[in-house]
Amino acid sequence: MKYVHNVEVMWADCDPARIVFHTHFLRWMDDAANKLFDKAAYGGERLLTEFGVPGVPLVSVHADFRAAAKLGDCLQIECYVSEFGTKSFTVTHNIRNGDVLIAEGWQKRVWCQADPDDAGKLTTFPVPDEFKQALAVP
Amino acid sequence: MKYVHNVEVMWADCDPARIVFHTHFLRWMDDAANKLFDKAAYGGERLLTEFGVPGVPLVSVHADFRAAAKLGDCLQIECYVSEFGTKSFTVTHNIRNGDVLIAEGWQKRVWCQADPDDAGKLTTFPVPDEFKQALAVP
Amino acid sequence: MKYVHNVEVMWADCDPARIVFHTHFLRWMDDAANKLFDKAAYGGERLLTEFGVPGVPLVSVHADFRAAAKLGDCLQIECYVSEFGTKSFTVTHNIRNGDVLIAEGWQKRVWCQADPDDAGKLTTFPVPDEFKQALAVP
Amino acid sequence: MKYVHNVEVMWADCDPARIVFHTHFLRWMDDAANKLFDKAAYGGERLLTEFGVPGVPLVSVHADFRAAAKLGDCLQIECYVSEFGTKSFTVTHNIRNGDVLIAEGWQKRVWCQADPDDAGKLTTFPVPDEFKQALAVP
Repeated sequence: MKYVHNVEVMWADCDPARIVFHTHFLRWMDDAANKLFDKAAYGGERLLTEFGVPGVPLVSVHADFRAAAKLGDCLQIECYVSEFGTKSFTVTHNIRNGDVLIAEGWQKRVWCQADPDDAGKLTTFPVPDEFKQALAVP
Repeated sequence: MKYVHNVEVMWADCDPARIVFHTHFLRWMDDAANKLFDKAAYGGERLLTEFGVPGVPLVSVHADFRAAAKLGDCLQIECYVSEFGTKSFTVTHNIRNGDVLIAEGWQKRVWCQADPDDAGKLTTFPVPDEFKQALAVP
Repeated sequence: MKYVHNVEVMWADCDPARIVFHTHFLRWMDDAANKLFDKAAYGGERLLTEFGVPGVPLVSVHADFRAAAKLGDCLQIECYVSEFGTKSFTVTHNIRNGDVLIAEGWQKRVWCQADPDDAGKLTTFPVPDEFKQALAVP
Repeated sequence: MKYVHNVEVMWADCDPARIVFHTHFLRWMDDAANKLFDKAAYGGERLLTEFGVPGVPLVSVHADFRAAAKLGDCLQIECYVSEFGTKSFTVTHNIRNGDVLIAEGWQKRVWCQADPDDAGKLTTFPVPDEFKQALAVP
């Protein structure tokens, strides 16, 4: 499963160099990953009620910036799960402006649920098989 | 009681016109108001545990921009409660860069608490006298 | 002329009260106003090259918050010029989530151009008639 | 040379999980790096006037999150240049809340200057020796 999130670069996204300030790319990667989970039927509401966790915690982020994006550019942020570990997985992102690659990045996330012995605490769990199947890239 | 919040303007605060993008002033007004409540012993933790409310809800904001602020400017955001109503109050802000007035603004907030009949719902309450006394401007 | 800007509320827009943090509404009002100017053929590029000004400077903002917006809400930010002065004008905004009014606000902006005697400085000018006609609300 | 940037976590930095949303850590890493360059006498003003470049362009960012930060936490973002290449260098960051390591990260930046043949274009240049000496970690 892949998800493509579309964003138009606005004035407020740009810095004094007149290009997108880099943390906005990381934010759009997060938006895209959340929409990917939604699409796979693991949206925020279900995570909270069924697993007792407000979102899938992030442990690492990485981004390489290949070209600048400017006011008015219409970007496509494509993402998919590129690798599953036992208790963690990696979401890979490509940000394009039409044919131009703007940035590449990834997020490593760990599967957590409310601790069975203390509902106020989160603890790591194996990534559910159903989640893996829903997000599998054929 | 007054509170002065200090902020140095960073690159990420500035837009392509090379001045602070206006929503950052509103954000700093909010930071300053929260620090004012902290100083009066009505911080976020107490509001949540004693009154069942995550912060004091905002119903209106207003800001007038008098001069631009630029990278490296050291701003002082001064705030105080300028008026108490029965269930609401107004926090007034002045933002200065030394002697230069950068912006003036205010926030209107309503006092809410967890509804006695439904703890998951917020409802308006009279502003507590103790809160009024703690925040009084002599 | 009216413009409706659509925004889906994302995780990163929400605060610990699990609702949109208010400065994001102000940011979306700004995005909507810029798109309105674009639609009227007064986009950022033209303002810079023809009038020597990076955007139409903002002198006041105001917003009244009527209802909270939450993760996943799809908002419509409608805006139009509600009043023209000699050198300034007001953009009025309504933010809706379907039938529910979330917020109302306005921005006052002044028409500026590069100073004929000093291109590095901005100075106020009468709002051009062509701009008024392009943005007129019939 | 090292620089330690201090930040108090505010309400607006926190997300519905009631912890700092991760892009704010990246933003604070950027603030800290800019203050480091300032301290070494390579601030934004000098970069623009002497080298024709608005800041030192970023090509990669990375961050590992070790522990959550919450409202009211006072964080120390320490940074220094950990490695110099011919035309690029790496700024390494540690974010601590007192004794607790919150996050580690790095930024890779390339030295650019206005192109001698086209002042409107940036091109890579060897990192100046004086910059290397100013930022050397003994």
